[in-house]
Amino acid sequence: MSELSTTDVVVIGAGVSGLTAARRLAQAGRSVVVIEAGDRVGGRTMNLDVADGVITEGGGQWVGPGQDRVLSLVDELGLETFKTHVEGKSIYHRRGRSKRYAGLIPPLSPLALADFAQLQLRLERMARTVPVDAPWTARRAASWDATTFGRWLDANAVTAEAKEMFTVGFSVTNAEDPHATSLLVQLSRIRGSGGIDHALNITDGAQESRVVGGTVRIAERLAEDLGGAVVLDSPVVEIAHDTDGVLVRSARVDVRADRVIVAMSPADAARIHVTPDLPTRRVMLQRRWSSGAESKLFAVYDRPFWREEGLSGQAVSDLPVAKYVIDNSPPDAGVGILLTFLGTTGSSRGPDTILDDPAARRSAFLDDLTVLFGAQAASPTAYLEKDWTHERWISGCVGSRPPGSLIEYTDADRRPVGRIHWAGTETATINQGYLDGAVRAGERAAQEALNCGVVTVRSRRAGLP
Amino acid sequence: MSELSTTDVVVIGAGVSGLTAARRLAQAGRSVVVIEAGDRVGGRTMNLDVADGVITEGGGQWVGPGQDRVLSLVDELGLETFKTHVEGKSIYHRRGRSKRYAGLIPPLSPLALADFAQLQLRLERMARTVPVDAPWTARRAASWDATTFGRWLDANAVTAEAKEMFTVGFSVTNAEDPHATSLLVQLSRIRGSGGIDHALNITDGAQESRVVGGTVRIAERLAEDLGGAVVLDSPVVEIAHDTDGVLVRSARVDVRADRVIVAMSPADAARIHVTPDLPTRRVMLQRRWSSGAESKLFAVYDRPFWREEGLSGQAVSDLPVAKYVIDNSPPDAGVGILLTFLGTTGSSRGPDTILDDPAARRSAFLDDLTVLFGAQAASPTAYLEKDWTHERWISGCVGSRPPGSLIEYTDADRRPVGRIHWAGTETATINQGYLDGAVRAGERAAQEALNCGVVTVRSRRAGLP
Repeated sequence: MSELSTTDVVVIGAGVSGLTAARRLAQAGRSVVVIEAGDRVGGRTMNLDVADGVITEGGGQWVGPGQDRVLSLVDELGLETFKTHVEGKSIYHRRGRSKRYAGLIPPLSPLALADFAQLQLRLERMARTVPVDAPWTARRAASWDATTFGRWLDANAVTAEAKEMFTVGFSVTNAEDPHATSLLVQLSRIRGSGGIDHALNITDGAQESRVVGGTVRIAERLAEDLGGAVVLDSPVVEIAHDTDGVLVRSARVDVRADRVIVAMSPADAARIHVTPDLPTRRVMLQRRWSSGAESKLFAVYDRPFWREEGLSGQAVSDLPVAKYVIDNSPPDAGVGILLTFLGTTGSSRGPDTILDDPAARRSAFLDDLTVLFGAQAASPTAYLEKDWTHERWISGCVGSRPPGSLIEYTDADRRPVGRIHWAGTETATINQGYLDGAVRAGERAAQEALNCGVVTVRSRRAGLP
Repeated sequence: MSELSTTDVVVIGAGVSGLTAARRLAQAGRSVVVIEAGDRVGGRTMNLDVADGVITEGGGQWVGPGQDRVLSLVDELGLETFKTHVEGKSIYHRRGRSKRYAGLIPPLSPLALADFAQLQLRLERMARTVPVDAPWTARRAASWDATTFGRWLDANAVTAEAKEMFTVGFSVTNAEDPHATSLLVQLSRIRGSGGIDHALNITDGAQESRVVGGTVRIAERLAEDLGGAVVLDSPVVEIAHDTDGVLVRSARVDVRADRVIVAMSPADAARIHVTPDLPTRRVMLQRRWSSGAESKLFAVYDRPFWREEGLSGQAVSDLPVAKYVIDNSPPDAGVGILLTFLGTTGSSRGPDTILDDPAARRSAFLDDLTVLFGAQAASPTAYLEKDWTHERWISGCVGSRPPGSLIEYTDADRRPVGRIHWAGTETATINQGYLDGAVRAGERAAQEALNCGVVTVRSRRAGLP
């Protein structure tokens, strides 16, 4: 038997987006209850314990310039940021040979560099024709949504090397192979998050800074300020809605409210039975949402030994697992951590055998790190990983829409349905898929509810089944 | 509290595929329990009541040549078939003008006919290079899976008219717009189900015959023969599996067994929590399965008045709703029924406003029928519809995989995971998406379980949590 309570607005999902929405509503004087299926707050941000008092981040971990809303929230919450480590030379490893380089641009062959530049120029030109709030209205939208970014690269890249660079960079960013990503989705992301350099770079880019204590501190601080208004371990099973209000039924509480904000990925929202049912486009968007598939792998050392050799810890390679490596050590460099992303799709996924075998995965990762950083890399003090494909309540990281569906379902990701509003980074038009998108979406959804004049529930008649 | 029982094999899903699997296992002397989430058997076959003793079929309704396994099963169950009505002239309506024609080929312009023929020839040539059991191994598989059938049509059709014909035909067949369908998926379907003429035609094609009493009679007869072994209204929430056996937990019964056959679409299978979790590729395939979206609309008249005017009741048009119409009257023609398919995606979906407004939908359908069949069509004695996008336990009709995922997830649709086997028409290599595919998949899954030597549960130690 669930407890029945009443509030102005129910928020479903205690990730950054949902908790931000709840904070903004509380600041506007509204009462809120946040209901979370899992046993912790943070959603796709979380810490992994490395050692006593040392953590690394299993989920979203970077903030950077242009991500104003998350930076502002971090500041508002009294949290601090630090710069991602970049000092030293990086490694570019291809076809069995390693080259060291300084600065942002890996030493591709001159032809591949020129090729990369022409591809970048053309993509950014195409992206400029894509309206950030309505990509489906771009003149060539139908055609671009009917093919994939990978197919476009195949047709337009002159060199395999430049194509590989795009593939490595955007497989990590999108958590899927470019051959599964709608070209229109890719262009709308380039348009909505500061361009290709911004997406791929550390300095002046989306990977520039980190949050002291881990990005999960954002959600934890938000939850602290909300006090007892966050209910954990309580999967929502049903939203009943009508013109008078909503009733949200979950494992531990049933809550009546004026409005509900669903702050989950569209794929996860599909688990909730809504009565009366959602509009057809919204239903189909949820069903066809293409969940992102990615793991983070961490090798921990007693110190960042590569720095002593003048290396930044960053590497780009064509090795099976460690295609992109970055120094993920804590700010005091009390331990050294090397991080890679293991996609589970296409060319970024690594050998088949390691997808479901943690021991083989660890071993293949350390083999690659040894190629890149020498024998010391073979013997970490710890190995950690976070696989986002096997979560109970979260159906993957990032994610997007398959080809054909941006055109088809347009703004069904965020268009309110009666008293139901939608948050989550997937619904952001700016910095979608980033922490900043999560904050923007939460703030937008809260503002929507306020604009609709959230009625304080206690002052009106009870009207729901 | 669920009742606990024990059986050799549990089948989840009482559609045609699951019930066929159960029958074959029972015939081989194994005990089975079939668990169904909904309140009826039949899955995506069902009858709608038209009048006293008169039905029309809300789901899959046709069988045809080459669909040997379903035809054999129909015969085995003592059911009868009858031919879809084809006598009389059909209507081809485009740009405000109607033409009547006899035979299979609508009177497209000579250029469009030639264009249709060259497109068909090229598609069938490409399809011949796609191995029916392993489309991902075709020489050009990667490239074809990275684009859509719609994009291929855009690039290769010379005339808008031929492209429209392909779009109408395959939007209905695939329950999605060609611009969302992977070209490789489309080619593998052409390869696996008898070619383009077979897919689109009535006579000698996939729409040739119907089952007396409705195709749901197949599932009902199967269930009758299984006696009390079918448990309805009992959504499965968990499959626990290990090397000793499986435990299937559902709302009304918990069942221990040697093996389980999951006879659901991959999208629906994702609702079941599996411990230990499924392999990553299987998880991702389920999440990314692209559910089909379609409704059937029926106008019922006191008699098939069009037949009196020498018309077959079949029409192909560019009207908003009734793009493809077929005479769906019962075998005795005691009433007349015109049927159309309303896609909910892309160019086949009809005007936006009608997607979620049944009254507008009915009205738009009848307007179109009046254009095609005259004033009598405006006043049906009844209007019926079946929308497969708003079912509680079935996430759409047919469905497939989005671009990039046939290459990526290969045979994860049907590769057994320990003691878990997979059925459902989605897992068929021949006639996937058809009733025949459902029967083939059920028989294949049953045979798999038998080949693995299903151990009679009562004769071995209980070994599960």
